[in-house]
Amino acid sequence: MSIERYDIVIIGAGPVGLLLSTCLARWGYKIKHIDMRPVPTVTGRADGIQPRSLDLLRNMGLKRAIMANEPAKVYEVAFWDPAENSKGIHRTGTWASCPKFIDARYPFTTLLHQGLIERVFISDLEQNGVKIQRPWRITGFSSDGVDKHYPVEVSIAHVDGDEQETVRAKYLFSGEGARSFVREQLGVGITHKDPIAHVWGVMDGVVRTNFPDIKMKCTIHSDAGSIMVIPREANMVRLYIQVASSTDADWNPRKTATTEQVQEAAKKILAPYWIEWDRVEWYSVYPIGQGIADRYTLDERVFMGGDCCHTHSPKAGQGMNTAFLDAQNLAWKIHHVESGFADRSILKSYEGERKLIAESLLNFDSQYAKLFSQRQPPAGEVGHASKHATGDEQVEENEFIKMFKASCEFTSGYGVAYDENIFNWSDSHPAKSSLFLSEKAGSTTQRPGRILSPATVTRVADANVVHLEQEIPLNGSYRIYLFAGKPSVTKKAVDDFAANLKKKGSFFSSYTRPDADQISYHERHNPHSLFFTINTIFNAPRPDIEVRALLPELLARYFDHVYADDIWDQRVPNAKAAAHAKMGLSEEEGGVVIVRPDGYVGCAVKLVEGSGTVDALNEYFASFCTKSFGGGDRAQL
Amino acid sequence: MSIERYDIVIIGAGPVGLLLSTCLARWGYKIKHIDMRPVPTVTGRADGIQPRSLDLLRNMGLKRAIMANEPAKVYEVAFWDPAENSKGIHRTGTWASCPKFIDARYPFTTLLHQGLIERVFISDLEQNGVKIQRPWRITGFSSDGVDKHYPVEVSIAHVDGDEQETVRAKYLFSGEGARSFVREQLGVGITHKDPIAHVWGVMDGVVRTNFPDIKMKCTIHSDAGSIMVIPREANMVRLYIQVASSTDADWNPRKTATTEQVQEAAKKILAPYWIEWDRVEWYSVYPIGQGIADRYTLDERVFMGGDCCHTHSPKAGQGMNTAFLDAQNLAWKIHHVESGFADRSILKSYEGERKLIAESLLNFDSQYAKLFSQRQPPAGEVGHASKHATGDEQVEENEFIKMFKASCEFTSGYGVAYDENIFNWSDSHPAKSSLFLSEKAGSTTQRPGRILSPATVTRVADANVVHLEQEIPLNGSYRIYLFAGKPSVTKKAVDDFAANLKKKGSFFSSYTRPDADQISYHERHNPHSLFFTINTIFNAPRPDIEVRALLPELLARYFDHVYADDIWDQRVPNAKAAAHAKMGLSEEEGGVVIVRPDGYVGCAVKLVEGSGTVDALNEYFASFCTKSFGGGDRAQL
Repeated sequence: MSIERYDIVIIGAGPVGLLLSTCLARWGYKIKHIDMRPVPTVTGRADGIQPRSLDLLRNMGLKRAIMANEPAKVYEVAFWDPAENSKGIHRTGTWASCPKFIDARYPFTTLLHQGLIERVFISDLEQNGVKIQRPWRITGFSSDGVDKHYPVEVSIAHVDGDEQETVRAKYLFSGEGARSFVREQLGVGITHKDPIAHVWGVMDGVVRTNFPDIKMKCTIHSDAGSIMVIPREANMVRLYIQVASSTDADWNPRKTATTEQVQEAAKKILAPYWIEWDRVEWYSVYPIGQGIADRYTLDERVFMGGDCCHTHSPKAGQGMNTAFLDAQNLAWKIHHVESGFADRSILKSYEGERKLIAESLLNFDSQYAKLFSQRQPPAGEVGHASKHATGDEQVEENEFIKMFKASCEFTSGYGVAYDENIFNWSDSHPAKSSLFLSEKAGSTTQRPGRILSPATVTRVADANVVHLEQEIPLNGSYRIYLFAGKPSVTKKAVDDFAANLKKKGSFFSSYTRPDADQISYHERHNPHSLFFTINTIFNAPRPDIEVRALLPELLARYFDHVYADDIWDQRVPNAKAAAHAKMGLSEEEGGVVIVRPDGYVGCAVKLVEGSGTVDALNEYFASFCTKSFGGGDRAQL
Repeated sequence: MSIERYDIVIIGAGPVGLLLSTCLARWGYKIKHIDMRPVPTVTGRADGIQPRSLDLLRNMGLKRAIMANEPAKVYEVAFWDPAENSKGIHRTGTWASCPKFIDARYPFTTLLHQGLIERVFISDLEQNGVKIQRPWRITGFSSDGVDKHYPVEVSIAHVDGDEQETVRAKYLFSGEGARSFVREQLGVGITHKDPIAHVWGVMDGVVRTNFPDIKMKCTIHSDAGSIMVIPREANMVRLYIQVASSTDADWNPRKTATTEQVQEAAKKILAPYWIEWDRVEWYSVYPIGQGIADRYTLDERVFMGGDCCHTHSPKAGQGMNTAFLDAQNLAWKIHHVESGFADRSILKSYEGERKLIAESLLNFDSQYAKLFSQRQPPAGEVGHASKHATGDEQVEENEFIKMFKASCEFTSGYGVAYDENIFNWSDSHPAKSSLFLSEKAGSTTQRPGRILSPATVTRVADANVVHLEQEIPLNGSYRIYLFAGKPSVTKKAVDDFAANLKKKGSFFSSYTRPDADQISYHERHNPHSLFFTINTIFNAPRPDIEVRALLPELLARYFDHVYADDIWDQRVPNAKAAAHAKMGLSEEEGGVVIVRPDGYVGCAVKLVEGSGTVDALNEYFASFCTKSFGGGDRAQL
């Protein structure tokens, strides 16, 4: 009997495993996905969905189904401290959850039961033929290379019985959570950034109270202890309460507390306000150890992600978001290697990019924990924070406000910045063309390794007002944004750009679809290549843009991806072409921005007449693609 | 055997019947709902959902489910005319579907297969225990009054067999469509506003074409004939083509055309562009007769609405929208009568308000039809229209542009204005207080009988940025908007307002809930009365609003309906309190706006110290409520 072969075996159907599975299933990979739990998460485990994650979920077409559950939305955080007369607590300030200086499309945190989020992914997976095998667990694996194409052997078994299977796969992914069989077998250690451990109580329920901020996120410090309040869907509220800390004199990691004890503590902390519970949906006490895995993979065949690689306190609501971005980062890289587009070495950048983020997260978490443990600053200081909620940045800032402000960018997900590497262009990148634009030189605001700035434009084909950053779904394609400036100014540069893309041996023409002659008229995103979609944005009013007259055939083929940069934007009120202006590009001459499949900027290049622009991009892509580019004759696409 | 009794029997499960049924089911009425068709609409019959209807669907909590079907959105209309050299067609201009001078939350028309819309309603009905009985038809009825409480006897039967039922009801509603058994039995005539009849061909399908505006709404006139193009969901396009008109020399109402003939005609009209069909989803040829029912009801027990009362051409996409608003108008009036809040005489206003709208619609339709039949104005004229798409109103206007502009307001649904009557205050209203505000006097911009202006505010309880006009769902309650100006200025006026609401014999305290002592802590909208919800909007930054400190107990009970008017609005860029400014109220002193349960303004009153404001409202409500108000002592709510 021949052994069953899969592209990937995924262990664990939490956020990281589900997002990875969903991407790869959509892109046609054969997946074995197992989870130890008989059913998806039933209660508890509500994480916040951060603004950046909402962008991602929308880009995957899943946001609407998630929002249909009517999650709570957190726009502001309130700080409560002991009142000066020592009688109870008072509010010392508030701060926007995602302040205006962060250019977020959805400037709020979304709170929803994790099980409801999992269900949205599971339903999408089922549409793509993947059914999660439950309750099954992994019992062994080896990256033995016996089969060159399917080098990993994985053994799995039913949790309750002796039913078992052995399969071979190209990849094995562990999204098992903090207790990972795979990580243990690999012998990968955990480094504890912050040696302080905590025991937390968490309680979800429906309450009655006269505490005015019960529907906001609050950190409450009182002489009777501290609490964090997080609103939830369905009129629920979550309370986090610290039960014990390793800094306590009587530290005991097994210390616990009953529901009633936590409720009594909450009543004392909230005084002079009263609070009563209608019902408790879920209650748990658990120890939190902060830690980060030393490696995310040893051989770029067996990978890990999510809680398996980084654990920390739940207070900043980062767990699910980091898991999502781990999975998204790995998904397109596996896809690009397996589809022959990129060199296998790019898989090293998964650990390179994501471990750095986890380290920032843990550093942040330890700062945040300290902040939460310390007495909050006096009213005068945080009063500024309150004024800042409107985005007014004129007020003098103290250290606390600066730290909190930096935190906002990080917790919103927009602070995530990948370091320079083969994907994220910098002066040290192998591509050396003088046409690369950089923030340092002031020639663009878009920074490689950062998310593309959001911009609202008018789609020429149907005059719909659209979010430019969302126009290409998460489909594994690089996104080529041709900011084409004024048509009268850039006509030749645009024609030359197309002609050079079309040339044999360009990065673009080297990866045309094998089925190029059978592409449907209705193919909108990938008429030429599965790895590129081109957006063209003109600085012109929509009715003046005649796509087939202004654009050469190659670019006009992306008819549904031509836009008019004619929507006024409050952030660049004096710009005539707001999208160009937000990108920091010339409104007359434009420029080209290359965005990775995950929405992060790769590089930006000047739009010039001649072959320079495409030459620069040939250099950029040559640094990680399987072919080398440049030279050669014109080819037919 | 005793006869089964219902609050209402509804015939027909098209848009008008479904919306009526959905409202009444939610409000607890017992409904018998039948439809002649064995299943909901399968193909064809796609109507546009206009901006105003999207507001309504969102207010009912149904918009998300409808948008999940990814309808097409029309933001602009393009006009195509014969080219001057007589070689084919050229675009002479474009116009915003819902231009900026209309303050619409959703400034586009949504195009979706009617069956998908019906399914959203049907699913909601099922959640409320109403299942549509199919395929059943009405066979007879009489408003015999034999049973005082259930005066109407209705006989229904299975379409195919001899199974039949006779039931009694308080009301009978016909949403049967143009061929109405009920209307015929009542002997209600149809008046034809425009004697010209038409035969139309309509074809839905997936096409390939180089016609650039295929994803926009277009009116195309060529020497080879005329076509209207409407984009649809799922990459489809609808073509309307006039097959015959009673103004033709060889007029024959039975004239028809095959699919191929219509496709051939379309090819000729679109030349020099080419068009080919991948598939045709639906094709039909049908005669359109314009007409309006002389009465909508004879006895305020048997009512009619939707196509049963008004038929016209489908070109302006008004059918479903008018049907929705017919049903919404009737629903809350029946509810207010049956729940003992309002006098039975208010039911007369259903015909009074809705027939006027249908007459406007038919007048518009006949103008529109003429416009469509006539040669379009030369390029110079419509060139202005194109410039107007951005809302710039400085350009000189010709008659055609003026008509089209007026049409935009009407077709968007915002042109709907109900005449002055007991609900829509005017100088001739029985309520004579000098405190009523009016547009004429410049003391408010809100006009009775018009929809409340949209406004974005911050909800104090959770700091969420919300759409004020959507904060109260369509639940049968009047919406009391207390624009409370600056807290320091209005403190006494607000206290007095609450004290006078609370007084025995006020319009508010006269209709407290019978279960007032058992109201849940979590009741957000109707803690005191099922007929009123109060919103309070302060001109103050959100963190400065301490609800329980600023508001007396009665108003503070609407804790989730207190808002900060602190969001900047492009339409009133210099206002400090944009919502106050948009309502045309003093930003310092505020004012009270009473909005009917359907979102239309009833009246606006100055906010003053003393009893004047509530006195004025007592007068207003006394004109149609079952009780008389004013005087008496303080009552406990």
